[in-house]
Amino acid sequence: MLLKELREEVLEANLELVRRGLVLYTFGNASGVDREQGLVVIKPSGVDYDDLKPEHMVVTDLDGKIVEGTLRPSSDLDTHTLLYREFTEIGAVVHTHSEFATSFAQAGLAIPAFGTTHADYFYGPVPVTAALTDEAISGRYVHETGLAIVERFKGEHPLDPLAVPACLVNGHAPFVWGRTAHDAAHNAVVLEAVAKMAYRTLTLQADVLGVSQALLDRHYFRKHGSAATYGQK
Amino acid sequence: MLLKELREEVLEANLELVRRGLVLYTFGNASGVDREQGLVVIKPSGVDYDDLKPEHMVVTDLDGKIVEGTLRPSSDLDTHTLLYREFTEIGAVVHTHSEFATSFAQAGLAIPAFGTTHADYFYGPVPVTAALTDEAISGRYVHETGLAIVERFKGEHPLDPLAVPACLVNGHAPFVWGRTAHDAAHNAVVLEAVAKMAYRTLTLQADVLGVSQALLDRHYFRKHGSAATYGQK
Amino acid sequence: MLLKELREEVLEANLELVRRGLVLYTFGNASGVDREQGLVVIKPSGVDYDDLKPEHMVVTDLDGKIVEGTLRPSSDLDTHTLLYREFTEIGAVVHTHSEFATSFAQAGLAIPAFGTTHADYFYGPVPVTAALTDEAISGRYVHETGLAIVERFKGEHPLDPLAVPACLVNGHAPFVWGRTAHDAAHNAVVLEAVAKMAYRTLTLQADVLGVSQALLDRHYFRKHGSAATYGQK
Amino acid sequence: MLLKELREEVLEANLELVRRGLVLYTFGNASGVDREQGLVVIKPSGVDYDDLKPEHMVVTDLDGKIVEGTLRPSSDLDTHTLLYREFTEIGAVVHTHSEFATSFAQAGLAIPAFGTTHADYFYGPVPVTAALTDEAISGRYVHETGLAIVERFKGEHPLDPLAVPACLVNGHAPFVWGRTAHDAAHNAVVLEAVAKMAYRTLTLQADVLGVSQALLDRHYFRKHGSAATYGQK
Repeated sequence: MLLKELREEVLEANLELVRRGLVLYTFGNASGVDREQGLVVIKPSGVDYDDLKPEHMVVTDLDGKIVEGTLRPSSDLDTHTLLYREFTEIGAVVHTHSEFATSFAQAGLAIPAFGTTHADYFYGPVPVTAALTDEAISGRYVHETGLAIVERFKGEHPLDPLAVPACLVNGHAPFVWGRTAHDAAHNAVVLEAVAKMAYRTLTLQADVLGVSQALLDRHYFRKHGSAATYGQK
Repeated sequence: MLLKELREEVLEANLELVRRGLVLYTFGNASGVDREQGLVVIKPSGVDYDDLKPEHMVVTDLDGKIVEGTLRPSSDLDTHTLLYREFTEIGAVVHTHSEFATSFAQAGLAIPAFGTTHADYFYGPVPVTAALTDEAISGRYVHETGLAIVERFKGEHPLDPLAVPACLVNGHAPFVWGRTAHDAAHNAVVLEAVAKMAYRTLTLQADVLGVSQALLDRHYFRKHGSAATYGQK
Repeated sequence: MLLKELREEVLEANLELVRRGLVLYTFGNASGVDREQGLVVIKPSGVDYDDLKPEHMVVTDLDGKIVEGTLRPSSDLDTHTLLYREFTEIGAVVHTHSEFATSFAQAGLAIPAFGTTHADYFYGPVPVTAALTDEAISGRYVHETGLAIVERFKGEHPLDPLAVPACLVNGHAPFVWGRTAHDAAHNAVVLEAVAKMAYRTLTLQADVLGVSQALLDRHYFRKHGSAATYGQK
Repeated sequence: MLLKELREEVLEANLELVRRGLVLYTFGNASGVDREQGLVVIKPSGVDYDDLKPEHMVVTDLDGKIVEGTLRPSSDLDTHTLLYREFTEIGAVVHTHSEFATSFAQAGLAIPAFGTTHADYFYGPVPVTAALTDEAISGRYVHETGLAIVERFKGEHPLDPLAVPACLVNGHAPFVWGRTAHDAAHNAVVLEAVAKMAYRTLTLQADVLGVSQALLDRHYFRKHGSAATYGQK
């Protein structure tokens, strides 16, 4: 069996989404990539989380062609593979319909950086894509979903995918990523917590400005980069 | 004992509502229909869920006449039977006072189709009935509740009950259905999740437009109909 | 030991408040009355729920004089005893700081009858008392809290305490009652559910009218009074 | 090993934050001080709560110099030690990013004293600090966070740290304290409950006035000071 360890990591990331209440029934999916072999491991489509085992994971190449596995891969596969091809430093992708992040996506609103919890993980607002055109929706829809994310990160106002490891798809829900499957799931859980607090901040006080650039810098770089001081080494 | 398997499915649907936090105490009820025999299996009224057994289920004909069972059927029986007579393709009905869907019903508002979670299950807004007249309330109230739902689906702006498998009763709460008891309960759980996200979307941004027809089509038909691609086969 | 059975019922009512998430730490209290003996059984003050046993309950007369028990009674005792003296048909009183009902009390707002869930238990809005005067607060405060409730039910716009078995104390929290300790706790749990849905209804749509008198009548009398049809017998 | 008992109390306070849902992953930290020895016991940085043992706690002096322990202390250490030096009567400090209190901090709003639940624990609004200047953020940031709290309590409108045992740091989250580690954690849990109810009170009715001084006095002094009557002795 190919990629034994990555299968286990991807399964574990999928289960973390369930434990943290981010997914309902079979909603949501996580995948991971082995950059050396150019292979992606992804959750199968519509299988109960209780029954999921490492061997159920589907292995594809970076174009989404199935290499190993008897189950159909997650219906969002083409978004995952596009993100792997375009964001070459990421190692895993997670997709959920977690309640609060999805509510921002449905409202077509980015999640503003209102506090240090946000700044610890996301170096600026979590962006929202443009709405997909009817043409994109009727075409290669799942691929186009990925294109909308890529356009948001590589278009007019570029963002570093590792500094802002999440994007809301307009009218849909968040995609989140990270260097590892563990990190991607962790980021998805924190995104939901941050979205929840942003929702309450906005409904308390509609005109909050959000954290200063100085606070954003201080918190983000406390946890990330070569000068990080958080945690045990 | 009549309809052994359907009793078990209906019991299981009732318990799913409890597990998912959709009912409090003895609120809520689920039923299923055997179309060949013309018999309905429904939860008894006001019995603790912990004590419910398949043999407690009450069996009636399509007019609500009790055929088997010593307990009194759910007080909402006449709404269930009317829906079975009028919506001939459905196999089960669920009624809950789940918090967010009920809040929309109390506000007299349909649940708009704000995102793909909604579109995966409901092909357009989940409608709300007209308020019942005083005459209807003082008359055959439970039957009239069913009539208000039917009027909403077969009246001036007709809807396909299988494409939009739920309706909010104005000032009351949702009724939800499906081809099987499992599906009806599943739809009720998703309806509550969708209502929760619609509530937060609206309180974030009062003037959201909701998903386009193209997105509604894409998501709904990804999970339903002959061209469905979601899940394993 | 006096009143063995009532002690157990009162303990059980206190524990039901914990199980349903209505109390935090030692907040909240339930009591019951034995009308024949003129004795009240009440939770002791500030004891952990995990440690509560029937023998810890304090027994007082209807004026709050301790008859049996070595622990200090709940600090809200004088409100309970006043309610027993004034509302002669009730058998138990419950006080919680449950989140949503307390939020209405803090806003100085009655909980409107927005739907049938409400109407099944409360025959009209759940009222809020006038704010206590500084004099009342500095005087026999706990007794005055009871007086404010009684004034709301027996004053200018009288209400039947059994038809509306709850009152919000302005700037404080709800007091709830019933014929038995079981019923009082049950009503407190439903009050919180009803408050939660009223909150969401109001924040969705500020100008909802609420249920009609006809719907209020239909639902309330379906569960209460000689013509009740809900449940088994 | 130094301070065996205090280590256990501090660990227990940390775990209480987890049990009550106030922290996510490794967010949050609690510490305690031994005034006689001038030593502080604090949670290590970024260690899973499941793995925490008393011996993992880090011991520092009141200037934050490590005296015992092989792990790196919580990154918020300098805020804790400053509070111990400035608020000489407190025995423990807790920091969380609990959802509702943090939402107020992000909105830059104090938590108003809307009801008796609040008044039982906090003698007046829970204040929010001024926003930190860019200079403070780029300088000794964690120390400056403490200074902002101290400025709020000892500046133009002084407050008694034991009468109002919490402060929101603007754009960040709450710091909470008490005479013991148990009390500090308890206060943090109640703060979150109070923040939740204040949020709902404000979103129901934006112009609530809050409790009167008389009610604030009555409730606060019922639980605190020499005339306290709540609980057993």
